[in-house]
Amino acid sequence: MDNAATVNNAAAPKSGAIVTVGLDADDTLWRTESHFRLTQARFAELLAPFAEPEVLHARLAEVETKNLRVYGYGVKGFTLSMIETAMEFAGGADVTAAVREILAAGREMLTHPVDPLPGVAETLAGLADRYRLVLITKGDLLHQERKLAASGLGDHFAALEVVSEKDIAVYARVFARHGLGPERAAMVGDSVRSDILPALAAGAFAAHLPPPMTWAHEHADPPVGHPRFAELAAFTDLPAWLDRCGESRRS
Amino acid sequence: MDNAATVNNAAAPKSGAIVTVGLDADDTLWRTESHFRLTQARFAELLAPFAEPEVLHARLAEVETKNLRVYGYGVKGFTLSMIETAMEFAGGADVTAAVREILAAGREMLTHPVDPLPGVAETLAGLADRYRLVLITKGDLLHQERKLAASGLGDHFAALEVVSEKDIAVYARVFARHGLGPERAAMVGDSVRSDILPALAAGAFAAHLPPPMTWAHEHADPPVGHPRFAELAAFTDLPAWLDRCGESRRS
Repeated sequence: MDNAATVNNAAAPKSGAIVTVGLDADDTLWRTESHFRLTQARFAELLAPFAEPEVLHARLAEVETKNLRVYGYGVKGFTLSMIETAMEFAGGADVTAAVREILAAGREMLTHPVDPLPGVAETLAGLADRYRLVLITKGDLLHQERKLAASGLGDHFAALEVVSEKDIAVYARVFARHGLGPERAAMVGDSVRSDILPALAAGAFAAHLPPPMTWAHEHADPPVGHPRFAELAAFTDLPAWLDRCGESRRS
Repeated sequence: MDNAATVNNAAAPKSGAIVTVGLDADDTLWRTESHFRLTQARFAELLAPFAEPEVLHARLAEVETKNLRVYGYGVKGFTLSMIETAMEFAGGADVTAAVREILAAGREMLTHPVDPLPGVAETLAGLADRYRLVLITKGDLLHQERKLAASGLGDHFAALEVVSEKDIAVYARVFARHGLGPERAAMVGDSVRSDILPALAAGAFAAHLPPPMTWAHEHADPPVGHPRFAELAAFTDLPAWLDRCGESRRS
């Protein structure tokens, strides 16, 4: 990886063509939401003596949302929110074992193997010669670096940008730093709210890869009909769509 | 803040003069180690029924070091390590209240006011016109952004770089991105191990501001006698030293 803010010369961009492709990480390149769900199921089991799973999950979601402002995104904050929720329900009982299990579950989420989703590795290998690929993700910096390394996809990326929030200003800044600005960039991800709407608003193209499951906090309706937006059925549809973006710009 | 990788033109650098100044954040611009110490004292009080303060602190330091690889630096990982340590000593007892207190202490560390150390605000205001100032720090991204905003120092900085480790490659990359490379850059901080030695090894100048207290993990001896190193008694000595760096380069 090289972080110099120069345009990838290998791309030899035609006027108007896309030069930078931003990619979301979690649940775009590899699964993580399923790990959160598994951990939540284990959490409900641990606290089964104190409350029903639905009650626990609803309260955990509230605590997570309340803590986002202070903890930000990522597994460490999620682990702290699980412990906080457990303390609310288990008051007075011996919770030592449950807390240890929650800590262990959090550490496991931080260290589990990372398997790219089907088609991702081959598609990125092909795109890396033609575009400047930038991984744009929220979460804990060290954990995202570790996942990128563990995925085996690191060599395809020109840069990794871990950001505290995905908003219009962040996309404008990242696409300026790693290319020719949002007008010559495309963003790809599974979250309409974080990956699609702010990237479009910044002036970039954006492609949505619908996920099998979405975190409640991230839900938003896709901007169907927007001239720079596409809904892709599979990651392998990405190269053809990027070609079309360049054409629509030139016409 | 603007993150474009161009050199600050206002600096109008003479050949050989410093163009980029990297600054550490915690315990260089504002105190944080004292907050960690206060929280540790509270932690020892909470667990006083189970163990002596010295034993608790020693074990907490071990747990922190063990977890650094997985959690990285920052308050969230520190909070998780406090909880893990508490569980080891309090097995069987009702720890609900203690865990809640630890969570509250962690949140307090993430939200307390940030007061720049004496001389920092005035000195940075003067330097910002002449150099490209870059804040280079480990820790949790959101928390470091929040502290910079709360300190009132944000406008002086051209960029904020939160990194998972401060090593030679990181300094080389950051000083290339925000200026003319390490040879035309200086790093300033309180940690010989993180701020001084790797920056010097990357080819930059480096100035050490001895802290009133140092985290055990960060200790190293200052490289006294190194031609590009200085030990400064006060933050306000920085502008004169930076002038001398440029002169020594030209001669």
